[in-house]
Amino acid sequence: MTGPIVLDCDPGLDDAVALQYALGSGRYDLKAVTAVGGNAPVEHTYRNARALVKTFGVADDVPVYRGVGGRLTRRIEAAAAFDFHGRTGLGDETADDAGVPEHAENAVEALLRLSRTYAGELTVVATGPLTNIAAALIADPSFAERIRLVFMGGAVAEPGNVTPTAEFNIWHDPEAADLVVASGVDYTMVGLDATHRARFTLEHLARLEAAGEPLEFTVRLLKFYFGSYNHFHRAESVPLHDPLAVGAALDPTFLDTAEGTVFVECGSPLTNGQTVFLRKEHTAGTSLPPQLTERARGSQGKVALGLGPRDFVEEFTSVLEHWSR
Amino acid sequence: MTGPIVLDCDPGLDDAVALQYALGSGRYDLKAVTAVGGNAPVEHTYRNARALVKTFGVADDVPVYRGVGGRLTRRIEAAAAFDFHGRTGLGDETADDAGVPEHAENAVEALLRLSRTYAGELTVVATGPLTNIAAALIADPSFAERIRLVFMGGAVAEPGNVTPTAEFNIWHDPEAADLVVASGVDYTMVGLDATHRARFTLEHLARLEAAGEPLEFTVRLLKFYFGSYNHFHRAESVPLHDPLAVGAALDPTFLDTAEGTVFVECGSPLTNGQTVFLRKEHTAGTSLPPQLTERARGSQGKVALGLGPRDFVEEFTSVLEHWSR
Amino acid sequence: MTGPIVLDCDPGLDDAVALQYALGSGRYDLKAVTAVGGNAPVEHTYRNARALVKTFGVADDVPVYRGVGGRLTRRIEAAAAFDFHGRTGLGDETADDAGVPEHAENAVEALLRLSRTYAGELTVVATGPLTNIAAALIADPSFAERIRLVFMGGAVAEPGNVTPTAEFNIWHDPEAADLVVASGVDYTMVGLDATHRARFTLEHLARLEAAGEPLEFTVRLLKFYFGSYNHFHRAESVPLHDPLAVGAALDPTFLDTAEGTVFVECGSPLTNGQTVFLRKEHTAGTSLPPQLTERARGSQGKVALGLGPRDFVEEFTSVLEHWSR
Amino acid sequence: MTGPIVLDCDPGLDDAVALQYALGSGRYDLKAVTAVGGNAPVEHTYRNARALVKTFGVADDVPVYRGVGGRLTRRIEAAAAFDFHGRTGLGDETADDAGVPEHAENAVEALLRLSRTYAGELTVVATGPLTNIAAALIADPSFAERIRLVFMGGAVAEPGNVTPTAEFNIWHDPEAADLVVASGVDYTMVGLDATHRARFTLEHLARLEAAGEPLEFTVRLLKFYFGSYNHFHRAESVPLHDPLAVGAALDPTFLDTAEGTVFVECGSPLTNGQTVFLRKEHTAGTSLPPQLTERARGSQGKVALGLGPRDFVEEFTSVLEHWSR
Repeated sequence: MTGPIVLDCDPGLDDAVALQYALGSGRYDLKAVTAVGGNAPVEHTYRNARALVKTFGVADDVPVYRGVGGRLTRRIEAAAAFDFHGRTGLGDETADDAGVPEHAENAVEALLRLSRTYAGELTVVATGPLTNIAAALIADPSFAERIRLVFMGGAVAEPGNVTPTAEFNIWHDPEAADLVVASGVDYTMVGLDATHRARFTLEHLARLEAAGEPLEFTVRLLKFYFGSYNHFHRAESVPLHDPLAVGAALDPTFLDTAEGTVFVECGSPLTNGQTVFLRKEHTAGTSLPPQLTERARGSQGKVALGLGPRDFVEEFTSVLEHWSR
Repeated sequence: MTGPIVLDCDPGLDDAVALQYALGSGRYDLKAVTAVGGNAPVEHTYRNARALVKTFGVADDVPVYRGVGGRLTRRIEAAAAFDFHGRTGLGDETADDAGVPEHAENAVEALLRLSRTYAGELTVVATGPLTNIAAALIADPSFAERIRLVFMGGAVAEPGNVTPTAEFNIWHDPEAADLVVASGVDYTMVGLDATHRARFTLEHLARLEAAGEPLEFTVRLLKFYFGSYNHFHRAESVPLHDPLAVGAALDPTFLDTAEGTVFVECGSPLTNGQTVFLRKEHTAGTSLPPQLTERARGSQGKVALGLGPRDFVEEFTSVLEHWSR
Repeated sequence: MTGPIVLDCDPGLDDAVALQYALGSGRYDLKAVTAVGGNAPVEHTYRNARALVKTFGVADDVPVYRGVGGRLTRRIEAAAAFDFHGRTGLGDETADDAGVPEHAENAVEALLRLSRTYAGELTVVATGPLTNIAAALIADPSFAERIRLVFMGGAVAEPGNVTPTAEFNIWHDPEAADLVVASGVDYTMVGLDATHRARFTLEHLARLEAAGEPLEFTVRLLKFYFGSYNHFHRAESVPLHDPLAVGAALDPTFLDTAEGTVFVECGSPLTNGQTVFLRKEHTAGTSLPPQLTERARGSQGKVALGLGPRDFVEEFTSVLEHWSR
Repeated sequence: MTGPIVLDCDPGLDDAVALQYALGSGRYDLKAVTAVGGNAPVEHTYRNARALVKTFGVADDVPVYRGVGGRLTRRIEAAAAFDFHGRTGLGDETADDAGVPEHAENAVEALLRLSRTYAGELTVVATGPLTNIAAALIADPSFAERIRLVFMGGAVAEPGNVTPTAEFNIWHDPEAADLVVASGVDYTMVGLDATHRARFTLEHLARLEAAGEPLEFTVRLLKFYFGSYNHFHRAESVPLHDPLAVGAALDPTFLDTAEGTVFVECGSPLTNGQTVFLRKEHTAGTSLPPQLTERARGSQGKVALGLGPRDFVEEFTSVLEHWSR
């Protein structure tokens, strides 16, 4: 069992099944879902998140809070990923959020409050851009000392998925990401180096289809997701980006990680959103400028460079196969 | 009488007398003081603000909240102004904050809460860097619709006071300032073009000295302030930066203002913190790039380009002369 | 009499009359004209410069070399000023360059060669963007030691004429300008603070019109120039930008100058092309970052902050009145 | 046999053996050597280059020209690699350049002149930073149409060798490199993806040692080079960076290349000098901003992503084994 957890997400197809996995496994003490702009604008992801807790039967147990859309500093408009996640962010689904309560308190206030209630115990799993997390750190820098963070995003040796060097979540709000990794928070970055190797195949999908009616919604989302990965019928596998981050929050043996410092490129049109990783043991020998190497001494985290010994895709499929609610 | 007001400040010598002026005038419904890093780090300004509400006799009426220090994105360490405001930020004074309550809720959360309680009525007067205000806007962009803002900072035709082109408050956190003026909030910028003309002279000082014991503390602060303006005995006047912003929040006739768009330079080592003002009537004819002129269409405010018909320095001196508490 | 001189220009209406003034005064030992892109692309300005030496009767004496167009680093396309200087750069004139020789040697090579031939004696007067000068300095940094430079461009206290903070010549190639002022070359900057005060009026124009046929071409150029300064019939004066720089190369008493360091903003969309001037006596007290203040110790020049005791506009008018060739 | 060739270099240990290889093979029609700052400042590399043509017996045949040191725009001081290439740039050697002629014409002027003499035929092989090449392109953009360029530098999938993402030659002057690859010149980039695979081993070294006295100088350079690659006795191989570029200029089958666009990061402290490669076939699908993708349509080149079928290290060793002069 994890300690108390908040899922900060931008559903998004894989966010949706990541949430379902967390609920289905029965091992995540989910205190809240906070919505952030990313795969779709925050108006959509907030609605989607509320519809998902209703669909998954936890609308009374898990409050959903509206978070921040767009880039932290607003200076550049960030693009959503409608092409990939469908016109609503959940493929072809019409999200039904009727009756799910809305709160005046927003995501950042809720994160700060929960971080005080569960100081030192709370895990935040972020599967979208890090805008909400950064906003909470800006409002109250001591937030960094009260939580640990596992986030999906970034790429080290793996090429990017939106530009030659950048992954979507980080590229969508690089300033937020850079602020987070420089904040001193205890973080694990689960980027493309790992998630591109967590391949969910047509065989896995067939197992979920066999489960029948309880997974019909899930299977529709996953089929849209296969479709987005360029022509469903020929694709034989898709990466489980967001679910892997949720899984790793509970069991780090799903990952192969290294320690060191992450820097996020925020200023360049060319490499915007690129995550540069300096391994702990290379800190001394680099020609990076002093303002960067100084950070390397202060703020280090764990970065997934590949998959670990335990098979997450099998675990994910197995949990969902037994879904019932 | 103003509507409800929050003073967001970094005391700071002139912040202190600005607060005293607000209290002394009896026309400001002060709901809270929020401290921000600037003239001194936030640890100092928070302590100073609490000591000031005690000294001025309002510790039971006006709660003080701890805000944010340093630059919004943390990427560059901002420098305080100890040289100018003394080693504590209040000249040679040892601030006594004993017994003044501290709150778990921080400045950003308090600003968001008060903006909901007094939606559409609240005035925030900011006399330090705009870090708290920007943090509130980041956490909840709709904050912009619920308040109006009067801030001290920036310079248009007047040269800067920390670099050839930058004023201290804006230079200390240019990203915060740029986010604020681009947020759509109703704002009035009270910069050096106005404050450098609001000269408090040795004659004004003599009037406060004549008031005797009730103003001894105030006179000590102001003498330190004269001293910082390079050699007390030869200085004949000092600008009332922060008090003027407080005054203008109640009576705009202290200022001569123009409408248009403010842009803050955030990316350049050379012009960092410079405020560039594009008058409303010049918006069409500029060669600024489209991403900037687009903003000009959306986010306009008022900028003080000089003093107005009513004499603020006289009003300020007159209010303080009659101080008793 | 000056020593040997090269006019590096982008004709351009005021470049044209500046050249005519230099020739007419009989006191400039003009060794070459080099064309640069600016008011019009270099193809136009090269053609215009060759047409002008023909028109002014010196095609056999003064070789014209083709220089560089566009910004030094090519990364951003610079805009010409066709609106202002007409579709050819010379108002409505059809430049006749028939028979004027072209050279394989380009402007940069010619500048380097002449700087060796007249090492320590050569004055370069630049009335367009500083692209050619910077290119020569890049190819051979010792060029800086062999010439002195007087250039038209920039603004200190005066607002810009293309953006709120930038003058056209510098804005057109800020990287070139910054490289030049940092190169150690002996330079005088003649910017808007001076040129906007050198007003050529309709009365001056009437004197040239009275000279009849020899000045018909000149009067047509100047009328177009008045027209560009927003509706000829209402304009009562135009600034003599480029001629003033030519004048000051021979007689510095046309200007009021101060010594110090110029920095050119190259990296910011907002303040791109702005010239920031740090007076020699303010070098110690600024909060500019060390990489900039270090330059201030090494590379200083003269900057015109206004007009000097001698009346350039009268001198200019008087020289042209007596034009005959 | 190549057509006419110029070697633009910053000797530098591997530049030295690259030159020797070119001379030894007898198949390079070497018209000039131009020195550039890089491994050592240009004062050193110019002296070294002149000493090398003397040592290799071609001082009368191959003129050497002094080029440009430091970064193109001078705004950031570039660091030399004394640690790696020794205090003179040639390990422990004291370069003897006595009697080798110096020329008033500098490297940039010589490159421009030779590009006109051999227009359309000239190959420039650059084994140092691209400062001279960029300076020639700035002075005369049509230089791009008259030469083809093979340069050593950059990295695509391979990590950098001075920062996590940058290779030394490009990092030393990224603005020059970016200007070159955007200029339209026909270029082949030979970066770490290829050179790190061209391993010269202790066995190859033993073959050169066996050749005795004619190769004593060469062997000393190479032993220093092994030493720099971290502790000679344990190192079993070193990459032939610069020689591979020289080899590829004559025979492209030493390389495995792909076509596309190279972008060089010039503005970011973090990723400064990184080369980003966009393959021709990926040009359409990227989220890079328009100003970059527009370049991709105009300026494409060849980039070595690995070694080709022909074994360059064997060829290099074999040519040097038979060295006699």
